[in-house]
Amino acid sequence: MDPRPTPARKGAERRRRDPAELLDAARAGDRVATGRLLSLVERGGPDAREVGRLTFPAGSSPGQVIGVTGAPGAGKSTLTDRIITLLRAEGGRVGVLAVDPSSPFSGGAILGDRIRMQGHALDDGVFIRSMASRGHQGGLALAAPAAVRVLAAIGMETVIIETVGVGQVEVEIAGEADTTIVVVNPGWGDTIQASKAGLLEVADVFVVNKADRPGAAETQRDLEGMLDMNTAMGEWRPPVVLTSAAGHPIGQSASQSASQSASQSDGAEELLAAVASHRGYLSASGELAKRRGRRLVAELERVIEASLHQRVAAVREGTGGTAIRESLLRGDVDIHDAAARMLELSGI
Amino acid sequence: MDPRPTPARKGAERRRRDPAELLDAARAGDRVATGRLLSLVERGGPDAREVGRLTFPAGSSPGQVIGVTGAPGAGKSTLTDRIITLLRAEGGRVGVLAVDPSSPFSGGAILGDRIRMQGHALDDGVFIRSMASRGHQGGLALAAPAAVRVLAAIGMETVIIETVGVGQVEVEIAGEADTTIVVVNPGWGDTIQASKAGLLEVADVFVVNKADRPGAAETQRDLEGMLDMNTAMGEWRPPVVLTSAAGHPIGQSASQSASQSASQSDGAEELLAAVASHRGYLSASGELAKRRGRRLVAELERVIEASLHQRVAAVREGTGGTAIRESLLRGDVDIHDAAARMLELSGI
Repeated sequence: MDPRPTPARKGAERRRRDPAELLDAARAGDRVATGRLLSLVERGGPDAREVGRLTFPAGSSPGQVIGVTGAPGAGKSTLTDRIITLLRAEGGRVGVLAVDPSSPFSGGAILGDRIRMQGHALDDGVFIRSMASRGHQGGLALAAPAAVRVLAAIGMETVIIETVGVGQVEVEIAGEADTTIVVVNPGWGDTIQASKAGLLEVADVFVVNKADRPGAAETQRDLEGMLDMNTAMGEWRPPVVLTSAAGHPIGQSASQSASQSASQSDGAEELLAAVASHRGYLSASGELAKRRGRRLVAELERVIEASLHQRVAAVREGTGGTAIRESLLRGDVDIHDAAARMLELSGI
Repeated sequence: MDPRPTPARKGAERRRRDPAELLDAARAGDRVATGRLLSLVERGGPDAREVGRLTFPAGSSPGQVIGVTGAPGAGKSTLTDRIITLLRAEGGRVGVLAVDPSSPFSGGAILGDRIRMQGHALDDGVFIRSMASRGHQGGLALAAPAAVRVLAAIGMETVIIETVGVGQVEVEIAGEADTTIVVVNPGWGDTIQASKAGLLEVADVFVVNKADRPGAAETQRDLEGMLDMNTAMGEWRPPVVLTSAAGHPIGQSASQSASQSASQSDGAEELLAAVASHRGYLSASGELAKRRGRRLVAELERVIEASLHQRVAAVREGTGGTAIRESLLRGDVDIHDAAARMLELSGI
């Protein structure tokens, strides 16, 4: 009595399918295959290259890539959830890449957010994926654009990249979007200047979330003031939208003008309108093609750099590498000679 | 009547001296020559390699490299100034590398700090150099250890590296020291967790500076609490020293124990004692050699990577690189193929 294929065995069989088969299955709606493709991309190596080759052609860019970034607890996931719901109501298919911070401190909260978004778990038009910001330096920055292309290749018209806007890498990844939404909360004035400046640079749209709390109008004024002083700003001035992602209408606690424009709403539709308006600007100005071109060239450099890294690691781990390192430590060769010998040994 | 050499012309002649001549002059006390050597190191290229070769030999490591890092405004420069004064009183020669943040926000304050330290400008036993954190990525991380070796080669027994402990690069550079002092202020509890964790990792000695202000004892307790929870800590537990770098004695406003141990002092001598104690631990445990070895191997990898980087940059800027980039943008090649072609063209 041989056991028949159990679900676990069927999973194991799936895992053996090659990237091309996986992509066909994912396009036909097989969510496990989609997850598998994204895992290959995250892991790097020959399979990731193959997935990259299959999903690269120019036509497979998603219609729109939206970045959502901000401090932990700013309400990014709840806002993302609202955006998904609104886009789904218009029939758009949405992929989400949610970048977990490596910090163990916020692990719990993030998990909660992921679970909250599982309201879309049974919706075939939505695919949500958490990506860990672990692994070798730059790993996430390499994997994120490749993962966006996978989601585009399986028919997701909008891809949302959600990151914690604290570290440099996270802010960089937020910059992988056509339109980057920076989420802040009332009282943001207390945040340190450095991260403010970084976020100011990547923001296409500002959201003051939890705007039903006191201080929203002041935070909006602060942001507008910062924008007034930003001489490096191009033709697009980031609008500042007030939202209350928990679903409360934004009432009298916000500023007078905010309550006039959004008194019956939680602000999510206004946010989406601001994103659409930025998208219109990008297309009309030719900035969309330029931005995507810049991103591609930057990605090329990261891929090259990663490949150089690997070569160096291979050299270092080789037998010759050990001998050279030892003569360096003894002071027999200086650092540049040691480097030159190491490269020579590797045939570079 | 030909004009005789003016000071400006003499400077121009100096600039033509080769690295070996410059080093001889610097060792004889020529401060312009020292500055020139450090400029060569910062600029990179063949002259930097030559300086590296001349200053590398094992014997030229400085007796002690101290890192001083912390948030902008924490009082790092003032503390550094106090440390210099105390070391000079013992007859030690001191070099300082002060890494300017690239942020224009703090430019003014930093300039002020530099000027404040100019009290040592006429002291031949002190050499202070500002290094900009500009240039290509990793440039500073490459230049800093080479600059330390230059200062050691001209007879500086102690080298202090002062950095703003905000960015990753800055924290890395602080890690180039034998003993890293992390400077915080009362009320540090408000600092974001992420940078706390990074600073916690590099700290060998904590200083609560401006400890004459309220909240110093709480901050000290916070730090001790974090240290209690740090399971990754080795044999050395970073002491937490209270200082008041502005010269005020630490009085009743700090904790009871602090006022007992340091009531008549500004804490700078206690700080130096803590540094000496860490130095003792490093030597006795064999950790000093291990640390320096690790630093050297890490530096070797940076040098190798920078060299590969240069090769690729040369190709990228050439016609071959442009052609590859254009076919990538047209979607004719995928990103991995484009990277492979670029590396092939570079002979890597």
